[in-house]
Amino acid sequence: MGASDLPIGVFDSGIGGLTVVKQLKKILPKENIVYLGDTARVPYGTRSKKVIEEFALEDLRFLLKRKVKCVVVACNTVSALALKKVKDNSSMVVFGMINPANAKALKTSKNKKIGLVGTRATVGSNAYKNIYMKRHASLLVPLVEEGITKGPELDIFIKKYFKDFKGKVDTLILGCTHYPIIKKSIEKYLGQNITLVDPAEEIAKEVKKYLKDNNLLNIQKMKGKTEYHLTDLNPRFLKTANNFLGNTNTAISFKQVAI
Amino acid sequence: MGASDLPIGVFDSGIGGLTVVKQLKKILPKENIVYLGDTARVPYGTRSKKVIEEFALEDLRFLLKRKVKCVVVACNTVSALALKKVKDNSSMVVFGMINPANAKALKTSKNKKIGLVGTRATVGSNAYKNIYMKRHASLLVPLVEEGITKGPELDIFIKKYFKDFKGKVDTLILGCTHYPIIKKSIEKYLGQNITLVDPAEEIAKEVKKYLKDNNLLNIQKMKGKTEYHLTDLNPRFLKTANNFLGNTNTAISFKQVAI
Repeated sequence: MGASDLPIGVFDSGIGGLTVVKQLKKILPKENIVYLGDTARVPYGTRSKKVIEEFALEDLRFLLKRKVKCVVVACNTVSALALKKVKDNSSMVVFGMINPANAKALKTSKNKKIGLVGTRATVGSNAYKNIYMKRHASLLVPLVEEGITKGPELDIFIKKYFKDFKGKVDTLILGCTHYPIIKKSIEKYLGQNITLVDPAEEIAKEVKKYLKDNNLLNIQKMKGKTEYHLTDLNPRFLKTANNFLGNTNTAISFKQVAI
Repeated sequence: MGASDLPIGVFDSGIGGLTVVKQLKKILPKENIVYLGDTARVPYGTRSKKVIEEFALEDLRFLLKRKVKCVVVACNTVSALALKKVKDNSSMVVFGMINPANAKALKTSKNKKIGLVGTRATVGSNAYKNIYMKRHASLLVPLVEEGITKGPELDIFIKKYFKDFKGKVDTLILGCTHYPIIKKSIEKYLGQNITLVDPAEEIAKEVKKYLKDNNLLNIQKMKGKTEYHLTDLNPRFLKTANNFLGNTNTAISFKQVAI
């Protein structure tokens, strides 16, 4: 088995990273994927850099033990606070969410006034560059995880977190993997003068380019398979997971693991 | 140093247990307290029994190493899901939140129609007995931790979670340590026909009775001291902590610990 046959390793603090898996599967359908979601300790976005680094290294070690051809950090918080730590401890190429999204935003923006929303940790980190205006939107994560993806209970918080961007930026980075789930509600509130950038789409393109340029694309005839590992198998997460993957008819099998 | 001089050990998934510390300090001002809040892995209320038990045992071990005269599980979720596990692994007397609150509710209720709100884990556990009606109020924890303790953003969720209890129960157990912080808003919404039971007040009374009956009350002349330990020292937690303790003028010193 050559390196190109190995799976792509993907990890996240929880199930938010499944929105990245969704984009990877879309443009790299033949790739096998090993996913780790640290659902026993989610969320990371409210924690300190020290703890985020510690947890991220444990997640990384889990993937490295499984032999992968590259590592995708499918979490904006880890990408913003611990990417250097993860890269320094990995023999593999590691992809983070920040740079591809940052590049796309710069290309998209006409007035170079780019906004950023994310967790408290991400927004506090200064990892995203050339940001004109930023704010955390902490409660959107628990809201989405509770299945509140539309309606007045969501709208009150969309208004709270997004109103200041109106008329100020022309491009807004959705710097948390949970936000694509409510992208339509955000777009509806912001109107047509602000273009949203989804880092999940951008990181998937970057991974594809890397695999192609380095002759690492899986050329098997079948569709790729994904192994899902979670550190806690709470039934709630399983229910929400399908929503994140955009599958409504597929039964996905998650395996509980210790890290 | 006799057993009565030892501190009371208190642990919680995070800083919610500080509302229990507040009650203990109120009626047992001479007692020393050692507090552990597992802020690196909070919340527990969205996780599975298996993971809650595992984390609770790690919290317990931290306190047992420090020599305490009894252990207070200042977390409804751990009390509901893992109290037996904690008791089985402790050489000390262990107090949980459920029984004293349950007893108080039964004494308070005239029609024996008692309601319960708590985390998803607590409400799903059947640990509270003689409950006529129950529901989880999952989003109240992140709301309170984000400092949203009044106003329309809180009210929309109070209505969501509490409206079904109106006209159905005469007594309602606030089965999560975060709820006392927003007790006034809940009372205002529910009106005078429902009496609220705060488990923090009840467990403090039970601890006092136990210490008295067993000649374990600290009889020092000074006020007791509290050592605060957190597994993550995120500045956000520190800010909210004062709110939970009800101190506005005291600078509290937290120490970060590994468990």
